[in-house]
Amino acid sequence: MASSGDPEFISSSTPLPPDGNDNYFKFDVILRFLLFAASLVTVVVMVTSNETKLVLFQGIPVPQPAKFGYSPAFIYFVTAFSVSGLYSIITTLASLSVVKKPHLKTNFLLHFIFWDSLILGIIASATGAVGGVAYVGLKGNKHLGWGKICGTYDKFCSHTAGSFAVALFGCVVTLLLIWLSAYAMQRRIPK
Amino acid sequence: MASSGDPEFISSSTPLPPDGNDNYFKFDVILRFLLFAASLVTVVVMVTSNETKLVLFQGIPVPQPAKFGYSPAFIYFVTAFSVSGLYSIITTLASLSVVKKPHLKTNFLLHFIFWDSLILGIIASATGAVGGVAYVGLKGNKHLGWGKICGTYDKFCSHTAGSFAVALFGCVVTLLLIWLSAYAMQRRIPK
Repeated sequence: MASSGDPEFISSSTPLPPDGNDNYFKFDVILRFLLFAASLVTVVVMVTSNETKLVLFQGIPVPQPAKFGYSPAFIYFVTAFSVSGLYSIITTLASLSVVKKPHLKTNFLLHFIFWDSLILGIIASATGAVGGVAYVGLKGNKHLGWGKICGTYDKFCSHTAGSFAVALFGCVVTLLLIWLSAYAMQRRIPK
Repeated sequence: MASSGDPEFISSSTPLPPDGNDNYFKFDVILRFLLFAASLVTVVVMVTSNETKLVLFQGIPVPQPAKFGYSPAFIYFVTAFSVSGLYSIITTLASLSVVKKPHLKTNFLLHFIFWDSLILGIIASATGAVGGVAYVGLKGNKHLGWGKICGTYDKFCSHTAGSFAVALFGCVVTLLLIWLSAYAMQRRIPK
């Protein structure tokens, strides 16, 4: 059986059964599907946030829309989660395909960590960007003279808040994916 | 050596020479030091961005300061990079300490990936938050009635831009750290 310098490991030195790794890939598929669902909800909720209100302009009520396309941060957000949604479909299929091919698994784990961490960087920065701008919209910033808009645009703001919350969940799922791949990889290293 | 159910492993069962891993840990130390330097520069440049200008208020010039503490996004940014700076010191020491103890290396790799990915999520979201708010400060947003402030506060804006650029570099370094740990871990798996 496996040799090891670790006393705890010797007492339970059975290498990982193939089933264990398959279980890992099952969790992986579930998490990737969750990432897909989170990305989809994030994008749909944000894209459907358009709202038009009558705003007084020089005493005359003028229809004034609010939509995500008005802010580059929101455009980046929608783009990033569209990419992560597409990415999660591709990697869910990849993860499903590899369940039956144990010899390919290790390479897949490495690629999963590589790409998952890149995606984490992209969606975390997008979530941060929307969070930063949305907070200004919610509270305003009196020092900079930026008025809050959430009193006026309720639907736009509630959609943004919902989208932000789901996006945060998507970031946590991506972090868990990296942790899961790293853990599965470490279990394949002989002690 | 370790037993394995994987047929390919038996045919090329030479494990990685210790030198290869030591080289990995050297790169790791260098990257962690870079992350420390980037975090330090990011925080210092942002904290020293205070600027006071005379702004007309009802026809009277009033001294009006701009500082990072006025925006929660900027406070989060400084906090996140203070954490990553502290984290990089601790992990640089950990990485240095493990160069001489090969039997601990594998566990360190797993922990490095765990914590590095968490730090990546934190600093990427902070960089995104500052990027989103700073872009509004740079260009304004006429749809939302938010005026740009970068015409008035030149020093504050150039400090923010510099800090943002170094923060982005810090995010890339953290991503490379995850990739390096994953690669080093994969090389320890028998083929």
